[in-house]
Amino acid sequence: MLDPTKLADWQIAEEAERSMKSVSRLAADWGILDAELLPYGHHLGKIDYASVLDRLKERPNGKYIDVTAITPTPLGEGKSTTTMGLVQGLAKRKGGVSGAIRQPSGGPTFNIKGSAAGGGLSQCIPLTPFSLGLTGDIDAVTNAHNLAMVAVTARLQHEAINTDEFLAKRGLHRLNIDPTNVSMRWVIDFCAQSLRDTIIGLGGKTDGFMMRSGFAISVSSEVMAILAVFTSLRDLRERIGRIVVAYDRQGKPVTTRDLEVDGAMTAWLMRASNPNLLQTMEGQPVMVHAGPFANIAVGQSSIVADQVALKLSNYHVTESGFGADIGFEKFWNIKCRVSGLKPNCAVIVATVRALKMHGGGPRVVPGKPLDVAYTEPNPALVEKGIVNLLAHIETVKKSGINPVVCINHFHTDSPEEIAIVRRAAEAAGARVAVSQHWLKGGEGALELADAVIDACDEPSDFKLLYEDSLPVRARIEKVAHEVYGADGVSYTPEAKAKAEAIETDPSMQQFATCMVKTHLSLSHDPSLKGRPSGWALPIRDILVYSGAGFIVPVAGDIKLMPGTSSDPAFRRIDVDVDTGRVKGLF
Amino acid sequence: MLDPTKLADWQIAEEAERSMKSVSRLAADWGILDAELLPYGHHLGKIDYASVLDRLKERPNGKYIDVTAITPTPLGEGKSTTTMGLVQGLAKRKGGVSGAIRQPSGGPTFNIKGSAAGGGLSQCIPLTPFSLGLTGDIDAVTNAHNLAMVAVTARLQHEAINTDEFLAKRGLHRLNIDPTNVSMRWVIDFCAQSLRDTIIGLGGKTDGFMMRSGFAISVSSEVMAILAVFTSLRDLRERIGRIVVAYDRQGKPVTTRDLEVDGAMTAWLMRASNPNLLQTMEGQPVMVHAGPFANIAVGQSSIVADQVALKLSNYHVTESGFGADIGFEKFWNIKCRVSGLKPNCAVIVATVRALKMHGGGPRVVPGKPLDVAYTEPNPALVEKGIVNLLAHIETVKKSGINPVVCINHFHTDSPEEIAIVRRAAEAAGARVAVSQHWLKGGEGALELADAVIDACDEPSDFKLLYEDSLPVRARIEKVAHEVYGADGVSYTPEAKAKAEAIETDPSMQQFATCMVKTHLSLSHDPSLKGRPSGWALPIRDILVYSGAGFIVPVAGDIKLMPGTSSDPAFRRIDVDVDTGRVKGLF
Repeated sequence: MLDPTKLADWQIAEEAERSMKSVSRLAADWGILDAELLPYGHHLGKIDYASVLDRLKERPNGKYIDVTAITPTPLGEGKSTTTMGLVQGLAKRKGGVSGAIRQPSGGPTFNIKGSAAGGGLSQCIPLTPFSLGLTGDIDAVTNAHNLAMVAVTARLQHEAINTDEFLAKRGLHRLNIDPTNVSMRWVIDFCAQSLRDTIIGLGGKTDGFMMRSGFAISVSSEVMAILAVFTSLRDLRERIGRIVVAYDRQGKPVTTRDLEVDGAMTAWLMRASNPNLLQTMEGQPVMVHAGPFANIAVGQSSIVADQVALKLSNYHVTESGFGADIGFEKFWNIKCRVSGLKPNCAVIVATVRALKMHGGGPRVVPGKPLDVAYTEPNPALVEKGIVNLLAHIETVKKSGINPVVCINHFHTDSPEEIAIVRRAAEAAGARVAVSQHWLKGGEGALELADAVIDACDEPSDFKLLYEDSLPVRARIEKVAHEVYGADGVSYTPEAKAKAEAIETDPSMQQFATCMVKTHLSLSHDPSLKGRPSGWALPIRDILVYSGAGFIVPVAGDIKLMPGTSSDPAFRRIDVDVDTGRVKGLF
Repeated sequence: MLDPTKLADWQIAEEAERSMKSVSRLAADWGILDAELLPYGHHLGKIDYASVLDRLKERPNGKYIDVTAITPTPLGEGKSTTTMGLVQGLAKRKGGVSGAIRQPSGGPTFNIKGSAAGGGLSQCIPLTPFSLGLTGDIDAVTNAHNLAMVAVTARLQHEAINTDEFLAKRGLHRLNIDPTNVSMRWVIDFCAQSLRDTIIGLGGKTDGFMMRSGFAISVSSEVMAILAVFTSLRDLRERIGRIVVAYDRQGKPVTTRDLEVDGAMTAWLMRASNPNLLQTMEGQPVMVHAGPFANIAVGQSSIVADQVALKLSNYHVTESGFGADIGFEKFWNIKCRVSGLKPNCAVIVATVRALKMHGGGPRVVPGKPLDVAYTEPNPALVEKGIVNLLAHIETVKKSGINPVVCINHFHTDSPEEIAIVRRAAEAAGARVAVSQHWLKGGEGALELADAVIDACDEPSDFKLLYEDSLPVRARIEKVAHEVYGADGVSYTPEAKAKAEAIETDPSMQQFATCMVKTHLSLSHDPSLKGRPSGWALPIRDILVYSGAGFIVPVAGDIKLMPGTSSDPAFRRIDVDVDTGRVKGLF
């Protein structure tokens, strides 16, 4: 067996890839027909979701398990690793097991966090295409999104320099777009802080229209949100046409449909709408589809990927981003609301390391060695930090399903520390498993797999946190209070005005609420660890994604375009020119 | 047989796609091994060029035919259509025939010109993936290129706000990049005039570094140029590392290697470095690889695609962009210089329509109905315009290979008009064929195929226009005089200073010269038709692409970012939600 204490993740992946299944065998073993598999090379492919769902519409769904976490350190607590490990562990107990994770963004892959394909002996492979654009879905999202920006900026220019008669000859009427109110921004899938805030359209009259603009990271795009939640091609087409790009000088929305760019945008997304099929290091199918970033986006892999997997599997494990306050909350109140699917259980990944941080341990900084508080036993810090875990257990229980706490085991964890976590979590009504899937693969995840099987067998009563009819501010307050533990919510005047407008607009009554909030704290302030109390959630702005059907309240300072650090991962990524293998991905 | 006078190109493509070969059969029929084919879906794939070239290194090359054209109207004169038609026609006479064209850019596809997959009964299929990103190569170029911009702008910020000690802890030394001399720009593969000239990095100290910047279209990227001319993975890796991104405050170049981003950029390009395999409507293999735009870029499909095809085929037809003054000139003096390949013949595509324009016919404007001068016989205009064709015939003859003029037949052409062209071209020493491949497919291209077979059988003596040792200004003057017909060359002070610097820099002596000039005239001025005389070529700027190994003189006003028109094609592109088919591509 490979030793993850001695080898980098990409080296382990490279070894595992030598004996991985061909995608045609992987798909056939899972019950996918030849015509439903679109291979991309020999070891991954896309699945024609519409064909599978139509063919198997009468088949009952398998068990549906979400993997979430406590509030993580900036290093992440191994949620994707646990997702892969759990799939591998379940497969040792039961037949028909699959997983689903989001496609990684080029931002973290080339910056600090890596592509999060899992780690050690619990990874999604093949790693290189997984990390480097996969089958192009994020590029397709980027292109579709930016085409809308091309349409609106070109239209601004042509309306500014041409007469009504000129426009009419081309079948166009004047949209009178307000250049100070183009609500959409451009996207690029890197952490490009220098593009966050820009002026575009400098130059002469054929060089565009001079205006303030900027770029967000592609995975925060409304188009990515739509890819995560659409349920059929017709639904996709309609959602894309409802995207509000800007407002006119009377304040009326200007949509992609008004710009006549919605059909072309959908065309870009046709292939991207099919989920990607990869595999765990132990050969189980893994769907990879749609976007990451539960802090600034919906942060869920796609509904269609889960729908397909639930038809083909007895147990399907899906991942939602970051902690249960944001990733699971959106899985619960957005993804399951739209899909109508009912999960059976949620796994909450906890590490002794993160609990110590919540108990008051020193700051954890990526790239810097961990403080001794984290590498040597310190039960007192764990004891103090356990409140964070309890908050996430309560959140999962509010949804009516059964929580399983997975202690993602590190070799530095002491038995006493683990016992503290186990005792507290069990007292809070959760099953608990210690898991060594990073070190041992599926063999190391048997305790976790058994706890999940038990939790799925137990009856559960999944229910949404709020009804569709609840007004937006009441919803925000409900999430803030019941999930984040806030005492109240404050609004900037701008956010308050937007909330009022939304509450009186009947077209927005069915919209889901997709919070934007840091993942590094239960609160809006990344420096507040543990389970903060005596605070109010400040809502700075409220965006409306009419295509996705989301109201997007933005809490605190968080930005839709992260920054590249002074020591980014791209420095260590390279290609071996003799073998063609890519090195340094993680 | 399908009737192209009654059906749109995408409708014909859709019909042809019902009976197209699977990519595995297409590849096997062409002599590609299973392991060398990376399928992308069922009807196209990538070819492991390194494996094929190694396996067949002892096999002699087939005949090598370039397709070029006279100076086109803005509508294009059917060069890709002729390339497809010629491949189809040759296949009716000989075994082992293939073609190669560039991947279309999203700019023209969604703007005016379309994706140029050919037309009528001479098209490259499947059309939808061809037009919508294919296997993601342009996206990979865009990502690799923009990652360098992320690296340089993040570095500018981190050097501005941090101490030497902070940088040293991360293994960095201060590069002292001059923010007014970042020579690279961002790229996006649309016609986005509003991004041409921008200010970036507004905001606070973590929001980047405030500076002038801008975007070019992706296909004009130096990374795309490298994809077109690299000859092995090692060569690709080295070229990527030599790209100059900026200059420091002492004027010394700052490369991708200095920024430690060259390995990660190469990683993005690994899959893109393999050519794509598609097919004509009559089932011959077509390689599609690397970038278009011979006016602002090298405008050639890749060297590796041609190398592979020449090993597998008896006749291989490759296309170079726009007219012979720019596309063929670069095929001749850049692509063949780097590859060492010797072409046997060049086909010059001419239309009666374009010759009339060169003879003084009214302006041809995309989207507007053609003037009656073009739709009814007017031999006098053709007679006057023939000088343009003669210039291009002379250019091809200077390279030492045999020209074949293909009159791309329109139903409005009169016998008298065609006779004028035939007579003049034959008098200039070219073979001439009238071709109806648009209307009739390969059957309509038999006269052309026979002329090409004859031209390939005739001995030829291919030679470059200038030696590597010729200084840059002498080269520019040689191309301007002998290919464009200019009386002289003028330089802006900036261009002159750069030329002097280049001429004294020994590291640039082996660089090829890649002219940037409008394709709409033999001169730099798009309004000068026919064969302009009594003019000088104004060189506005000279770029250096150290990675590609190109000196890039920029003539006249041409921009590296085209603009989206007031009536772009995206208005008419859509998806049929019942069938999933994309409509409106051309």
